[in-house]
Order: sequence, then structure tokens, then C-alpha cells
Amino acid sequence: MTDIPESHPRYESLKMRESLVKSVEEGITSQAGLIAHGRGEMFDYLLGEETTEMAKKAERKAVAELDKAENPVISINGNVVALVPRGIIELSRTLDAKLEVNLFHRTDERMKKIEQKLRENGAEKIYGLDPEEEIPGLDHKRALCSHDGIYTSDVILVPLEDGDRAQALKKMGKKVITIDLNPLSRTSKTSDITIVDNITRAVPNMIRCEPLQEDFDNGYNLRRTLHYMSERLKILSEEI
Amino acid sequence: MTDIPESHPRYESLKMRESLVKSVEEGITSQAGLIAHGRGEMFDYLLGEETTEMAKKAERKAVAELDKAENPVISINGNVVALVPRGIIELSRTLDAKLEVNLFHRTDERMKKIEQKLRENGAEKIYGLDPEEEIPGLDHKRALCSHDGIYTSDVILVPLEDGDRAQALKKMGKKVITIDLNPLSRTSKTSDITIVDNITRAVPNMIRCEPLQEDFDNGYNLRRTLHYMSERLKILSEEI
Repeated sequence: MTDIPESHPRYESLKMRESLVKSVEEGITSQAGLIAHGRGEMFDYLLGEETTEMAKKAERKAVAELDKAENPVISINGNVVALVPRGIIELSRTLDAKLEVNLFHRTDERMKKIEQKLRENGAEKIYGLDPEEEIPGLDHKRALCSHDGIYTSDVILVPLEDGDRAQALKKMGKKVITIDLNPLSRTSKTSDITIVDNITRAVPNMIRCEPLQEDFDNGYNLRRTLHYMSERLKILSEEI
Repeated sequence: MTDIPESHPRYESLKMRESLVKSVEEGITSQAGLIAHGRGEMFDYLLGEETTEMAKKAERKAVAELDKAENPVISINGNVVALVPRGIIELSRTLDAKLEVNLFHRTDERMKKIEQKLRENGAEKIYGLDPEEEIPGLDHKRALCSHDGIYTSDVILVPLEDGDRAQALKKMGKKVITIDLNPLSRTSKTSDITIVDNITRAVPNMIRCEPLQEDFDNGYNLRRTLHYMSERLKILSEEI
């Protein structure tokens, strides 16, 4: 990529994109992951690039569920490592949750690069590197997982996840929690708790927040989020 | 990339993404272009992946303005070539408009690859390959353009354009027309006519449509589009 001139009015946003492009060059993020990031960017724009009250509530409930779990697992992919390499490890410590690498576009090389990046950022035990099990209902490569990790987890955090896999995990009877800026994605609709927030804000929030013990209605929370976005579009239209 | 299983419920959409990823591998689309495509995908989803009445009107007005122009030019970048290689050439013939390659991430290699792809799809004269002029107010590489093409154009179609350049062209006194799925982008707000539609639908529409001779209010058209998206979000929220 060429250098972005500092005179460009969207310098900050372009720099963030550039760091994802860099992680593609490092072999960590897939190119399809870049497209997914673009979709997220746009939903984040509709959120005003801020954590909403709905997202805060979902984050607090997610922490409560992961705290209570017997075998909590955090699933890691290329975009997660590119965006929150330190944060996701700190979160796994705070929650006493296992880290498992689980890729949509799995290759041995990408697995190694991601393992390396996690180690550089302080990860110790990493699951998913030598998977013995498969998630039922998925094609072989996408199904691979560790017995002591995802396979036997009861509560699983799958940030920036593919809808197919979120559904397959749900069918296994797990409590599924996701972080996804698109409230309309299959992952968002399938999950028990959907955090509609940028992962770069959600993870630090989850490290610090107070767990929510009260009832939580994910469908209601998603509908409120969509109404919030809908109103934002109307407000933004007045500026044209 | 690994093969996408046909069993995947979003097979079509994933295949489209894969063709863009392929064009990155061919050296035609930049990786930042993939992120931009992701943002577009999401806005298209809010449009129901259909051409709205507002977009049809903008397409018809765009054709009328390009028809009337003395030196109409169509600006081409990597995503345009990846998505509508034949259509954009056919449109330039229909409108008797010049084709000029103009890249945000300009390298000699990408220029050559794009030229080659355009030739394979039947393009004859291509501007922008040996640029003698610069668009005032932009950094050197982004400013380069042909004297007989963009530099002296009176009406210019800049699909999937960067906001900086759209503004610089406007400052040169040109009539600027864009195709952009994001009605809130600077390009969309800056242009005289903004076609908020997927380029894969807009280009065939423009080849066939009847030019609109009546007055056209771009701001009003954009506000209506945003209201349409806002309503769609509300309707979609009811399905959760």
C-alpha cells in the first residue's frame, strides 16, 4: 500500500484499515476478513462509533454468564487477533476462560502465525492447534476443535463469527455469546447474547464492567439497537 | 482462499466476495478496496439489494448530463474493473465518454494490470496511463490525470470514488456524478448527482435507461434514500 497523506480528512479511519491490511500481509487476517471489517465499519458509523446502552447491558450480561460457566472458552480468529491482540488475552485471564483458535479459512500457516502473535502478546495455553474433535454439521476444516476447549465448553464467546458456526455451536447446546456490529447477521440472531459494539471497545469494557445478574432479553436488545440505528440515519439525513 | 461449501447459506454473497479477492490476487483491486466493498455490501443490504426509485431517477439524470457534455469522462479504478469490466466499457460507448484509469493506490504494476483487463474486455483508447496533468489540491500520485481526459472534462462519472478526489474535481468546476452505496460518504454529499445503487445494477440500468430532462435535487434524493434505509431497518427489526 502507498502512504496515506496526513492531509487526508479520514486519516484515522484509513490508518485503522491499513493495520488490518498489514495483518493480511502477515498472514493473520484473511482477505475475506477485510470485507467483513468493511461491513462492521459501516454499522459502527450508524452507532456513532460509541458503545450504546444496549451494548453495555449485553457486555455486562456476557461477563456474568462467562463467570458462571464451568468451561468458558473464547474463540479467536484472524480479525480478533489483528484488532485486540492484548485485550483478548487479558479478558481470558479476567474471566478464567480458555483461548481457542478457530478459523473460517483454516490453513496450517495461518494457525501458526496466529499462535505466534498470541504468544508475543502473552498467551500461555492455546487450544485449537491440534484439534481432536469436530463441531457436528460443519464441513471438516471448519468443524475442527479441541476436546477440552470448544467441544466441551458450556459458554462460548465467539467474536466476529460466521453464522454457520454460531448455529452449529448453538445446536450443540452451548450458550453462545458474540460481538458483532451487524445486529442483523445470523450470528447476531442466533446467539444468546449479542454485543453490538466494536470489538476494540467491547473487550476493554468487558474487562472492567460489573456483571449483570438480572434477566436479559437478547431479541429486545437487538430490536432496540436497530431502532437506534434507524433514528441515527434519520438524524444524519438532516445534515445533507 | 479455501473453497466455500455450497451448503453455506450465504453461498452467493460469499462467491461475489471471492471474485473481488481474486482481483486483489491479480493485482487489480487494492486490499483497502476490499474493505470499501464490505461497507457497500452493508448499505446494499439496507436497500434490499434492489435499485430504488431514487437511484433510478439519479441514473436517468446522470445519463442526460453525460449525453449533453462536451468532454464526458468515466473514471475507472480497481473495484470498478473487478465488478463491471464489460459494462463500464459498453457504457462509455453508449455515452461516447472517454475511459480514464485513476487510482487511489497508484502503482505502475496496478495501472498495467487494469489496462490489460480493460483491453481484454474490448476497450480501445484508455486515458490516464501517461498523465501530463495534476488535479489541483491533491498529493502528487493521487492527482495525476490526462490532459484530454479528466483534466479538461466538463462532466465526469467517478464511481466508487474517494471523497478527497470528488471534492477536488468539484473545485475544478466539473459536474461530478458518482455511484456510491453510502449516501453519507463525502463523495455522495459532494457530487452533483449521486447514484446510491450497486454498480453491478447501476451500469446496466444506465446503458438502457431513458435520460431524465427535468430538474433534479440531489440533496432531496439523498435524504429520501436515507429515510428509505431507516424504514428498512425498522422493518427488519420486526423479524427478530
